[in-house]
Amino acid sequence: MDAQTRIQEENVELHREALLRTPVEHFDIAAVDTRPILAMYEQMRFTAAELSRAYRILSAGLADEDCCLFLSLAGSTSAAGCMDIYRDLVDAHLVDAIVATGASIIDMDLFEALGFRHFHRQDDLNDDQLREHEIDRIYDTYIDERDLRVCDETIQKIANGLEPGAYSSRQFIREIGRWLDNEGSEYCKKDSLIAAAYRNNVPIFCPAFSDSSAGFGLVAHQTEHPDAHVTIDSVRDFRELTTVKTSFKESALFMVGGGTPKNFIQDTVVCADLLGHPSRMHKYTVQITVADPRDGACSSSTLSEACSWGKVDRALEQMVFSEASLSVPLLASALFHQHAKDKRKPRNAAGTLSTAQNTP
Amino acid sequence: MDAQTRIQEENVELHREALLRTPVEHFDIAAVDTRPILAMYEQMRFTAAELSRAYRILSAGLADEDCCLFLSLAGSTSAAGCMDIYRDLVDAHLVDAIVATGASIIDMDLFEALGFRHFHRQDDLNDDQLREHEIDRIYDTYIDERDLRVCDETIQKIANGLEPGAYSSRQFIREIGRWLDNEGSEYCKKDSLIAAAYRNNVPIFCPAFSDSSAGFGLVAHQTEHPDAHVTIDSVRDFRELTTVKTSFKESALFMVGGGTPKNFIQDTVVCADLLGHPSRMHKYTVQITVADPRDGACSSSTLSEACSWGKVDRALEQMVFSEASLSVPLLASALFHQHAKDKRKPRNAAGTLSTAQNTP
Amino acid sequence: MDAQTRIQEENVELHREALLRTPVEHFDIAAVDTRPILAMYEQMRFTAAELSRAYRILSAGLADEDCCLFLSLAGSTSAAGCMDIYRDLVDAHLVDAIVATGASIIDMDLFEALGFRHFHRQDDLNDDQLREHEIDRIYDTYIDERDLRVCDETIQKIANGLEPGAYSSRQFIREIGRWLDNEGSEYCKKDSLIAAAYRNNVPIFCPAFSDSSAGFGLVAHQTEHPDAHVTIDSVRDFRELTTVKTSFKESALFMVGGGTPKNFIQDTVVCADLLGHPSRMHKYTVQITVADPRDGACSSSTLSEACSWGKVDRALEQMVFSEASLSVPLLASALFHQHAKDKRKPRNAAGTLSTAQNTP
Amino acid sequence: MDAQTRIQEENVELHREALLRTPVEHFDIAAVDTRPILAMYEQMRFTAAELSRAYRILSAGLADEDCCLFLSLAGSTSAAGCMDIYRDLVDAHLVDAIVATGASIIDMDLFEALGFRHFHRQDDLNDDQLREHEIDRIYDTYIDERDLRVCDETIQKIANGLEPGAYSSRQFIREIGRWLDNEGSEYCKKDSLIAAAYRNNVPIFCPAFSDSSAGFGLVAHQTEHPDAHVTIDSVRDFRELTTVKTSFKESALFMVGGGTPKNFIQDTVVCADLLGHPSRMHKYTVQITVADPRDGACSSSTLSEACSWGKVDRALEQMVFSEASLSVPLLASALFHQHAKDKRKPRNAAGTLSTAQNTP
Repeated sequence: MDAQTRIQEENVELHREALLRTPVEHFDIAAVDTRPILAMYEQMRFTAAELSRAYRILSAGLADEDCCLFLSLAGSTSAAGCMDIYRDLVDAHLVDAIVATGASIIDMDLFEALGFRHFHRQDDLNDDQLREHEIDRIYDTYIDERDLRVCDETIQKIANGLEPGAYSSRQFIREIGRWLDNEGSEYCKKDSLIAAAYRNNVPIFCPAFSDSSAGFGLVAHQTEHPDAHVTIDSVRDFRELTTVKTSFKESALFMVGGGTPKNFIQDTVVCADLLGHPSRMHKYTVQITVADPRDGACSSSTLSEACSWGKVDRALEQMVFSEASLSVPLLASALFHQHAKDKRKPRNAAGTLSTAQNTP
Repeated sequence: MDAQTRIQEENVELHREALLRTPVEHFDIAAVDTRPILAMYEQMRFTAAELSRAYRILSAGLADEDCCLFLSLAGSTSAAGCMDIYRDLVDAHLVDAIVATGASIIDMDLFEALGFRHFHRQDDLNDDQLREHEIDRIYDTYIDERDLRVCDETIQKIANGLEPGAYSSRQFIREIGRWLDNEGSEYCKKDSLIAAAYRNNVPIFCPAFSDSSAGFGLVAHQTEHPDAHVTIDSVRDFRELTTVKTSFKESALFMVGGGTPKNFIQDTVVCADLLGHPSRMHKYTVQITVADPRDGACSSSTLSEACSWGKVDRALEQMVFSEASLSVPLLASALFHQHAKDKRKPRNAAGTLSTAQNTP
Repeated sequence: MDAQTRIQEENVELHREALLRTPVEHFDIAAVDTRPILAMYEQMRFTAAELSRAYRILSAGLADEDCCLFLSLAGSTSAAGCMDIYRDLVDAHLVDAIVATGASIIDMDLFEALGFRHFHRQDDLNDDQLREHEIDRIYDTYIDERDLRVCDETIQKIANGLEPGAYSSRQFIREIGRWLDNEGSEYCKKDSLIAAAYRNNVPIFCPAFSDSSAGFGLVAHQTEHPDAHVTIDSVRDFRELTTVKTSFKESALFMVGGGTPKNFIQDTVVCADLLGHPSRMHKYTVQITVADPRDGACSSSTLSEACSWGKVDRALEQMVFSEASLSVPLLASALFHQHAKDKRKPRNAAGTLSTAQNTP
Repeated sequence: MDAQTRIQEENVELHREALLRTPVEHFDIAAVDTRPILAMYEQMRFTAAELSRAYRILSAGLADEDCCLFLSLAGSTSAAGCMDIYRDLVDAHLVDAIVATGASIIDMDLFEALGFRHFHRQDDLNDDQLREHEIDRIYDTYIDERDLRVCDETIQKIANGLEPGAYSSRQFIREIGRWLDNEGSEYCKKDSLIAAAYRNNVPIFCPAFSDSSAGFGLVAHQTEHPDAHVTIDSVRDFRELTTVKTSFKESALFMVGGGTPKNFIQDTVVCADLLGHPSRMHKYTVQITVADPRDGACSSSTLSEACSWGKVDRALEQMVFSEASLSVPLLASALFHQHAKDKRKPRNAAGTLSTAQNTP
């Protein structure tokens, strides 16, 4: 390396530090009580009314003793500052099971558990320049690409430690939780959704698990162990998730974004029917999204449309037309203050899965 | 009328009562202090960060002693429950001048000043059936069409009482304010934005004034008085608004929605230049809208784009991607609690218009 | 001026030339026949089906001998390449009256009539830099700000030549048409919508006329002639537009975008009723927009909602979810090829306005 | 069953027939040549210009002899009338590999291959009533729920015929293709994308395969064979897709919608790097979507943003802001007429996967 190259590289390093300066801090739902705001929204119309009704519906779901509440996560709200909200809801026994994108669980939650951070976008560097600085961008957040590689390697390390065989994503994520709680505790810098879910017997399902940092780690693992290795069987995820659904009389869906998680949790009603264990439609359903229904896609499709498929009960469903970073804190804070101190009984959704299903 | 027809009509009347049952109540910004929420949003990203930055920008504008704050209103947020917010901001001296659609000022604000209400949509009556019930719909709100006609007639009555001649909308709305404060006080059931603006010397401009109930009333007035009547000269509005703009060193724009008001207030910078009174670009600018910039229209155009036209300073501008009923209460409450008790000095923007301009 | 400043200014001039290099060319609806495409869209669903149904509806409106077709224009589609489409529809007798934003008619159509052009955005100059180069941006188009000033001055010159008094925007725009056809013909470089409308007795209404370059020119005119000058009476516009509406048994609306034009033309039904000349709801109505109805604003409101107000017949209405530059050419080409050679009889909508109304 | 119940059921059956009356017919890209339209769009701006540039980029990708073109499908465009477009592109050797949602491939393409159809929405039955009629709705299309069950069963039958073990979705879909071409040919009523892909060695990957009718069929298969059964290993999909990517010097992405397929195909660049086979960024990339980037999610994220991650080259990328049913036919027809007769050499992407990878 000649002098000039070294100077350039040093400049990149200095610039990287400047670009990765202001970390995202997550909203703390315990710190404010938004119920008075939602009470006024209730008398209004448009989106304000939608959000207050979403609160009433999920609140009813939480108060229903026969009901299991599923949180569905798509999009990058965890990167943008909602990450601790989901963890705190789990710890307060207000979420019983989770269906999520791999990115939310691995690239964001495990990533911050390992001590890495998301950062505020700093200025108008273009995306070519960011690439040269090894900085990845999600809208107005920055991620250090080098940190992400550690996340991939952690997945690989955990996979290497497991018995070869077919795992559901739920089983694999539970192993991550176990690792965070045990040998990984020395690497773990922050309490996380994965860890809280592990502690609280809240299963986490990622129907497209390999479409994330988990995929990178698992590909590396399989390549390293070509003959006997861990595989992720998403069919098993579907069976398990349906078992959770059918283990409770009623269900509530708190959907942040759409995507594969939205479809997967809704489809459990149909799957239950097919397996000869007919189950009721999801009774309390909320989706927060700005996706436009006029594109005819699943993410944007109305919850009413899902009723035609026999998946969602129309009586208590609400779409909320809002980018989630704005509305999820308001909604979750109100649910937390209304229900957390009631000591809602944990549903132990993971316990509905038999031992045979819990190990590969 | 035969018996059957009478019964049908009675049924319609009964049904109308049932449909117009739950009035919209407006958000009360004094009742909650949202600053702790915005402080947490500031550490987040995505829309939450946009809203907190919008707050910082407008707060800086309010703290700037040389600055006049313009509120721009388009869309139906007043019908949906934000109406009192705008009035309360005016009464707290946090808004110095207003540019709005005719609908916001006449069909909504004057309408409720006269004691009428907007109502919650009740059920799935289709729009044909609503028409048969003389109920008008704005998204999920209902309006009694019969009440709207009283609003038209009030405009006609006020116009009939004025000297014939060319008025700016600002002048005409000031006359409405005067009427509400005097002979109209017996009809007036509720304090309103128009009345607060009249009391506080806050001028209100409607660049497309006849595109509203005001248009209906003024058409009736002109038809009734074909030879000598009130006309609305929108060119005069533009001159007057530019005079207000140039009377202050700096300006802030708090834009709710886009439309004609957004363009009109921005254009004052160019107009001032043309009149030989060069004025600085709008310094503190915020727009709340979900309009998609990819349609290339003015309502959705970025504030950065407005900088290319020399209208808006890029340093302190912020678009907020949110339907306004959700975010305006949060933003306005924070501004109110931060600045109302400081007793910000009224800017008396109406006073910048000479007597000659104030009367036709 | 020192040497360095002169060099900088020369650089700006050179750069301006490079930036204003590739002019927008307008779609030529005669050059392709899109009917085979729309016929296939008709068998599909989603937006393709919406567009084909919009074609069927407007086609039925054109075939209806008692029907007057109103074209409503908002947004910047004329800048983006649809300008000649509107002119060609007028020349083919497929549009009978126009309601538009001032920008569409003055800043875009008159602007190009005078020989100026819109240009393709060239590269990533930011908006501050564009301002320094006196280049205005509309999304991905550029406009030379110096050319726009000529447009303002032309308006001023035309206003200076008129008798003082209150004009509707329709009357004033007719005077522009007359000017283009006579003394202005030496400046006129391109055939335009204004000129075609003048030739074909197609009235053009701009309910917010001063919210455009027209406003700049008229403010300059009024300032120059403080005592006796032209004023624009938008109430008169409303009366005249209602007269046109009530002069025909049926009406069709071809709305590109929303905004003030959408509301203004729809309101004529209510205005007619108020004036004691009850008129039927608009029978054939189409709106092309990507505006999201969930914001509760007029631009995005469904045509079905307009039925609750008694303005639009639900039987033949169609919203088309598309940015207009993509779909207007397809739709207009099909209408042109289906109806232009039939020699549809001109409706002479301007002729419905009495002489007394045609002159101030 | 009493008489009344029987009459009700007969009524439902009759109504079902009436509701499922008008099938969706798919756009035929050979029937029209849209190149003259796109040539005019190229001179325009806004979305028209985006679409024409998308055509230029993909056309360049097709002309590049070192380039493999990936088609990525999310959303329901196949149900809405684009289904045959994708098949015809494969048969014309204009698509080399496919990444899709399970719904596009199984619920839509296999579904119609079996002779079932999508239908036009007929009237305003609400979604509760549709459910009672066993009719599923996707926006303005209808599907007979009974037909979908046959689709599930077909998957189950095919799985039952395979050796137990871990399959990639690509392998399983290839088995469906083989079945359609052999024993399934008696059931097969229509040529399909799956069959065309099988014939042309075009691999199809579904990273969330069980999130579809495939999931229902495979759950039934696994439940029926609890001890030895087919599993779907999505990690293997990722390895295989990365192998395809690294087997070609350059790659082009034609993305319809976003979702898991968008992320999965983009991630192959990173995966290749991780596996020690560094690969170039995707060189020619197009995405058609109306998703709003302001929600910070992957589906809506700009292709420029993907460059910061090192996945997409910024030089030749284009987002097209359009619902796909409108623009995919225009784009695909132009590509077809420009390149089909050139007899582009098939890339045989499936052949890049070794025999060991092609069988479980």
